[in-house]
Amino acid sequence: MTSTAHATTVRSIPGDGLPAKDLERIRAQLQECAASLGGEVSARNRAARLGETYLQLAPAGRRAVLQLIAREFGPDPVKVASAHTAWQASIGTPAEGDAEAALRAAMRSARIRIMTQFLALPQGVKFLVDLRADLLRFLPHAPELAVLDRELEARLSAWFDVGFLELQRLTWHSPAALLEKLIAYEAVHEIQSWADLKNRVDSDRRCYAFFHPRMPDEPLIFVEVALCDHLAGNVQDLLDVHAPVFDPKRADTAIFYSISNTQTGLRGVSFGNFLLKRVIDDLKRDYPRLDTFATLSPLPGLRAWAEAQADLENDGAPGEWARAFPEADRQRIAKLAGIAPTLHAIRSLLATPAWSGPEADPRLAGALRGGLERLAARYLVTATHKGKPRDPVARFHLGNGARIERLNLLADTSAKGYGQSYGMMVNYLYQPDSIEENVEALLRDGTIAAVAKVRRAARD
Amino acid sequence: MTSTAHATTVRSIPGDGLPAKDLERIRAQLQECAASLGGEVSARNRAARLGETYLQLAPAGRRAVLQLIAREFGPDPVKVASAHTAWQASIGTPAEGDAEAALRAAMRSARIRIMTQFLALPQGVKFLVDLRADLLRFLPHAPELAVLDRELEARLSAWFDVGFLELQRLTWHSPAALLEKLIAYEAVHEIQSWADLKNRVDSDRRCYAFFHPRMPDEPLIFVEVALCDHLAGNVQDLLDVHAPVFDPKRADTAIFYSISNTQTGLRGVSFGNFLLKRVIDDLKRDYPRLDTFATLSPLPGLRAWAEAQADLENDGAPGEWARAFPEADRQRIAKLAGIAPTLHAIRSLLATPAWSGPEADPRLAGALRGGLERLAARYLVTATHKGKPRDPVARFHLGNGARIERLNLLADTSAKGYGQSYGMMVNYLYQPDSIEENVEALLRDGTIAAVAKVRRAARD
Amino acid sequence: MTSTAHATTVRSIPGDGLPAKDLERIRAQLQECAASLGGEVSARNRAARLGETYLQLAPAGRRAVLQLIAREFGPDPVKVASAHTAWQASIGTPAEGDAEAALRAAMRSARIRIMTQFLALPQGVKFLVDLRADLLRFLPHAPELAVLDRELEARLSAWFDVGFLELQRLTWHSPAALLEKLIAYEAVHEIQSWADLKNRVDSDRRCYAFFHPRMPDEPLIFVEVALCDHLAGNVQDLLDVHAPVFDPKRADTAIFYSISNTQTGLRGVSFGNFLLKRVIDDLKRDYPRLDTFATLSPLPGLRAWAEAQADLENDGAPGEWARAFPEADRQRIAKLAGIAPTLHAIRSLLATPAWSGPEADPRLAGALRGGLERLAARYLVTATHKGKPRDPVARFHLGNGARIERLNLLADTSAKGYGQSYGMMVNYLYQPDSIEENVEALLRDGTIAAVAKVRRAARD
Amino acid sequence: MTSTAHATTVRSIPGDGLPAKDLERIRAQLQECAASLGGEVSARNRAARLGETYLQLAPAGRRAVLQLIAREFGPDPVKVASAHTAWQASIGTPAEGDAEAALRAAMRSARIRIMTQFLALPQGVKFLVDLRADLLRFLPHAPELAVLDRELEARLSAWFDVGFLELQRLTWHSPAALLEKLIAYEAVHEIQSWADLKNRVDSDRRCYAFFHPRMPDEPLIFVEVALCDHLAGNVQDLLDVHAPVFDPKRADTAIFYSISNTQTGLRGVSFGNFLLKRVIDDLKRDYPRLDTFATLSPLPGLRAWAEAQADLENDGAPGEWARAFPEADRQRIAKLAGIAPTLHAIRSLLATPAWSGPEADPRLAGALRGGLERLAARYLVTATHKGKPRDPVARFHLGNGARIERLNLLADTSAKGYGQSYGMMVNYLYQPDSIEENVEALLRDGTIAAVAKVRRAARD
Repeated sequence: MTSTAHATTVRSIPGDGLPAKDLERIRAQLQECAASLGGEVSARNRAARLGETYLQLAPAGRRAVLQLIAREFGPDPVKVASAHTAWQASIGTPAEGDAEAALRAAMRSARIRIMTQFLALPQGVKFLVDLRADLLRFLPHAPELAVLDRELEARLSAWFDVGFLELQRLTWHSPAALLEKLIAYEAVHEIQSWADLKNRVDSDRRCYAFFHPRMPDEPLIFVEVALCDHLAGNVQDLLDVHAPVFDPKRADTAIFYSISNTQTGLRGVSFGNFLLKRVIDDLKRDYPRLDTFATLSPLPGLRAWAEAQADLENDGAPGEWARAFPEADRQRIAKLAGIAPTLHAIRSLLATPAWSGPEADPRLAGALRGGLERLAARYLVTATHKGKPRDPVARFHLGNGARIERLNLLADTSAKGYGQSYGMMVNYLYQPDSIEENVEALLRDGTIAAVAKVRRAARD
Repeated sequence: MTSTAHATTVRSIPGDGLPAKDLERIRAQLQECAASLGGEVSARNRAARLGETYLQLAPAGRRAVLQLIAREFGPDPVKVASAHTAWQASIGTPAEGDAEAALRAAMRSARIRIMTQFLALPQGVKFLVDLRADLLRFLPHAPELAVLDRELEARLSAWFDVGFLELQRLTWHSPAALLEKLIAYEAVHEIQSWADLKNRVDSDRRCYAFFHPRMPDEPLIFVEVALCDHLAGNVQDLLDVHAPVFDPKRADTAIFYSISNTQTGLRGVSFGNFLLKRVIDDLKRDYPRLDTFATLSPLPGLRAWAEAQADLENDGAPGEWARAFPEADRQRIAKLAGIAPTLHAIRSLLATPAWSGPEADPRLAGALRGGLERLAARYLVTATHKGKPRDPVARFHLGNGARIERLNLLADTSAKGYGQSYGMMVNYLYQPDSIEENVEALLRDGTIAAVAKVRRAARD
Repeated sequence: MTSTAHATTVRSIPGDGLPAKDLERIRAQLQECAASLGGEVSARNRAARLGETYLQLAPAGRRAVLQLIAREFGPDPVKVASAHTAWQASIGTPAEGDAEAALRAAMRSARIRIMTQFLALPQGVKFLVDLRADLLRFLPHAPELAVLDRELEARLSAWFDVGFLELQRLTWHSPAALLEKLIAYEAVHEIQSWADLKNRVDSDRRCYAFFHPRMPDEPLIFVEVALCDHLAGNVQDLLDVHAPVFDPKRADTAIFYSISNTQTGLRGVSFGNFLLKRVIDDLKRDYPRLDTFATLSPLPGLRAWAEAQADLENDGAPGEWARAFPEADRQRIAKLAGIAPTLHAIRSLLATPAWSGPEADPRLAGALRGGLERLAARYLVTATHKGKPRDPVARFHLGNGARIERLNLLADTSAKGYGQSYGMMVNYLYQPDSIEENVEALLRDGTIAAVAKVRRAARD
Repeated sequence: MTSTAHATTVRSIPGDGLPAKDLERIRAQLQECAASLGGEVSARNRAARLGETYLQLAPAGRRAVLQLIAREFGPDPVKVASAHTAWQASIGTPAEGDAEAALRAAMRSARIRIMTQFLALPQGVKFLVDLRADLLRFLPHAPELAVLDRELEARLSAWFDVGFLELQRLTWHSPAALLEKLIAYEAVHEIQSWADLKNRVDSDRRCYAFFHPRMPDEPLIFVEVALCDHLAGNVQDLLDVHAPVFDPKRADTAIFYSISNTQTGLRGVSFGNFLLKRVIDDLKRDYPRLDTFATLSPLPGLRAWAEAQADLENDGAPGEWARAFPEADRQRIAKLAGIAPTLHAIRSLLATPAWSGPEADPRLAGALRGGLERLAARYLVTATHKGKPRDPVARFHLGNGARIERLNLLADTSAKGYGQSYGMMVNYLYQPDSIEENVEALLRDGTIAAVAKVRRAARD
């Protein structure tokens, strides 16, 4: 789509950045942009051409350009220091305002000015989001890019403030070019085909996304909702293309069964909580009978966490596995499965999905249920990382004020579902009245909101 | 439009700010917003309610709230100082990126967080633009607001970056609610009536405006253009409702005869230059025959400047008036006007528009032409303010790379036109090929781009 | 808007139609269109050029063209007769279908084929509607056009079937070009200015119009509605620009106070009844509290009818005036007005609005009320024309199933209101439950639906 | 989508129409509609309910309802006869206009009034188009429906006049629900998948459709166009999903490679010619370099026609096959294919696609080329049906003024292409300058427009 007529042609040497001569030329161009020579309009045009050059570079070339920007276009420490001194001296005097503003101005780097000028590209906003994705990709091997990444993140946060986003419902009447992106971006339960997609926007389903007005063809985050009359306990039924369509007028429950962020370049800019809030408002207006808003969510880290736990003991205390599967359970499982009544054997049994397959004795799943629920409850309620819930999905929903409502066995029997969480899923419930309280309790003392049954399972 | 159901009711005492109790309550609410207690979603809702309270306050109450925010929600000097020290120490080390980001974070005040949360109001962006207008109004008497004003300006600059704005053509098919705003906002040549307005969007006219996607009903800046076949030299003909409509297909010249900024709250956020650039592009695409793009502009400061000049001498050198009206001219004017052949008498003559009225001898205007043109040329080419052209309109167009093309006598014979500039106007010409060069010459050494005739008139 | 590049240039002689040579050329062109020589696409292009020629003709020239079409492009009587005979013979046989279709085909004239080809003009539909308006204008003096008029009316009826029309709400956000047409077309209570117009689309008002998808800039019919909490009894209050705005959420009553047809060329094509039906549905959905839907309507023929009535006797029976103003009323009126207690004097008194002016004794209007209401009730309930209500507005609303709800004195004190109906107006009430019944009773035996009080006033 | 709350419940007995009682009730409802009892608004509501009933009937029930309408709601022969007599008597008198209108009114049946009332259904226009499709399906076994079919066709022709249709370009940004219909309706070259569809709306392709404003989700007819730089000679290349995308700015040729009508119910209502005309105009405006507009079309009847021809003789004259394959060709073909040098053997050879497959000697196709081209040329230029070209696609394009430009061997090697025309296709060329002339010559004396080479091949 972009014309390359005016673009500076630059060869990029994969793996080794850019030839010195090219780098020199790009440095000169960056300096011209930073100085806004010839006026702002010209500076933007120049930046647009530079942006087109960037797009044609191989990764190594791009990294070299970003390193150049990060290193050479930062704030001037001398000016910052002197502005800082002036501000400190001004505090409490009438000059404080100007001094604070002057310090801020000294901190404002040429980097971000250049970045902003890239908006002049035809798809300028998308360009910057993708450039940030480049940054994040390079970052592990080029820590000096961190400073540029942080500055760009702050700017993107301002631009992508939820106050600027538009909530749109996506339906089968949406542009194919847009729906195609749902297929590409769906991160939780892969969309298999256009027929699968059509099913997900059928009359008993809703799909909502946030859009930025300057990226109208790119959903930023989207959520898939099923309208039904019960707390859906497994994803197989929800995704069954052949299931009869439910009359949404009769629905009292909305199940959020998939939430996907789409833009790597917006990592750290959060809007998922606002999306849920606005979708709930929208659904309530259309369907006043709805009174239950819940998710059907994966536990992406359950299995990894469980497998890292010791069998029997943990510093003298009983280990998670021993706690989850008491002796009586072990005996029953052993009998049904034809294995030894040991934790070791149970762990081996759970390592493959055979116990839950069509050929397995259904009583075996029943015998394992208690133990799996106890494991999952412990994981959700007690496992933490840097003081927050260890499970990323739990972190998101609990952080938004939801509570753990129900644990579901055999809820996602796909390979991915089994691999992540032995096929288990969890319902988080959003109750408008207790959202604030839940958020505060979590922040105050790390209290995890959970229904009594789950709390008990975590305590046992 | 805004519901007041949840708004905290606060009485505002005009002139004396707010009662201590109310101020206390608002302080507490601001602190809750700043701390994002109960999660971001709740914090935004709280901010929205606070915003509604603000809207109901009288000016003194609003000022008190803004002072509170400016004084009590700034960055913490201690944290800033320590982050500054850490950054200085980190320069050149791998920790530099994080340290710079940390300093920036320390500088990020709660003020701007609160401001941003106001976006949750139904017309949040407009709310903040209007709040900035409040700030600018209070500022002369409350200098401690400067710091908040500067922070908000920086944030508005990011949000209203031209890359986010939409160029729209306004026509007689635009919503009445929008066109009504042109009537309200037109700052150069007042729109007298809906018939006048309709004339300004007729088929030989164009009206373009920039809009922000979140303020779709508010033009931010708009420009009025006439398509014609000559460099229009007076505004009376352009605004004549009864003039025949020109066939735009035959036009070779586009005259920009009015540019109006509409939002006080966006002072300092510039987009006029980009507007002209994009309008020129748009016109060229629609009418490939167009080859001349010029303005017909006022000289708002000419008369005030001229009247402040000494008659004859200026530190021994001849004064501007003496230079403009040499002896021969004085004699001729005196004879035609029946006055004494002195500069004093000519200044008195020019003080009222009688010399140009329908009853005046047309030869008199002819006799004054040379002197007025020399005065205007001197004003435009030599008068400066802080190193930039003194005339604000000249500053804008010359800063964008236009050149002074022609001075026009009796070009705006309205009371305003006479009062500002003895009825004179000026054409600035935008020549794509020389725009960059003009901008650079102006920045480099203050060179004013002007056609030879005008340069000569300024030199004589 | 229309290009005239290819148009045949034809001079039109006002008053005498067209020169023979031009007429000859147009005849040839019409024959080419009718024969579709060179294919349908070419025929349409040719028709479009002919249409442009038509638009440039003076009225006499247009009439000559229409007469040509009416006279020379009708069905062939011989073919029709033979098709008719064949059809009669076929009735009850398998050939009946084809025979009936063949008769219809024989009746299908070249006239309507030519008319339809005019759709190829850029504003083709509007062209034909305006051409019909021409026909209606010429018809009184050119009865031979009737046949063309009737054919075109039938075709327009098919095209403008209500099933194809779009209901749109007009607001202050509608295009100025559209709102301007309300000002031009409002036929009941003239719109004085843009401020008046803005008042009529304020938040306690609604304005709806039907549009044809191919005439998007032309409302076909529009209705103005006031939302309020009582049965509005006069139009002065409704149109008062300074009246406070009523909160529409509190409204229980919708008053239809003006309905205007806009296109003369659609005379005989009715959609007023459907408009009211759909507007009522739309209002009910937005404001579930609304339970009263009524008009505030003029009685355009009341005064003319009353003035044509004999004073005292009518074939021996008491005349309308004597019935309306019994002796006691006459005495009271005479005393208050200082006139003789005769019907003649009362008629003179009513002839000018002085009795109701600001200087009149308010008791006088009170004394006249009974008589005026009886006159109006008699007029509405008993006066007929060709078996239908004589008053055209009554004919419309009663024909749609409304009932006469209330008579209002001094309800339209404009010169027009006084001149038509002594300032009286009437509320028609639309009660969903009785609409069908009212329509049938009217069709069956001419029963006029009216509230008891009005029926009584008509009987007294 | 349609509510069935108010629908009359009717059981339909498949195969035997409706139970007498139900039929009786429907007859009564139809009579009410026809009489517009209770006003037009009520009549439409009643018709809408009747329409919903109709939709729930099995085919036999639907046919019974349509037969009822056809038989019992036609015009009254007695009234028609007397109106006819009155019209004949009026010819040449002032009463002629009214008399003609009266005859037309007498012919206007209740049938069409009822049909029109069905427009009150939510998707009324689509309902009637589908009802006509029902009629066409039933017609072969219920000839008495012909009269209703012809009346409805005439009315649909008026409603679907090309003057009311909107040309829309369909792209990958069109609603998925719309694009899905292209997949369903494409009648020439089946769309295999969404990927195939995306290829057909890629940047070097265009897809246009006509829409009726009241059927916005249903394309009526659509055409697929390829922009390229040569006269495309086979459809395999055009449909190749992996072919590189051509830069449309460089295109000088537009190939119309597929035109599909979508609505059975609009049979007899033609707009294909207008579609091509408007698409050509649209393309020319976007791509001024385009100068060749041609089709790549199938010859659907070639093989069936060829196989019906005698080998050697036709009433003593040489048969088509003998003419197409002269002795020298037969020898060469026989040698290459290893068959006997007889027409019989060649016909057998051509009966399967083996001669053209990847394993065949490429010289064989070369040897067959002359004969196949002669056969196809004879078919296109000389074979007629009812005085028009026998091939339906040729009939359409030649009737629109195109000329036969080139015959292409192995141009559609799909099973369908081979089965219809031995894999041959033809380019028809649209030359604006000669379109009218070609149409007239065809109408006047059946002259088929063809390039000299093809004319020669048909003569040889």
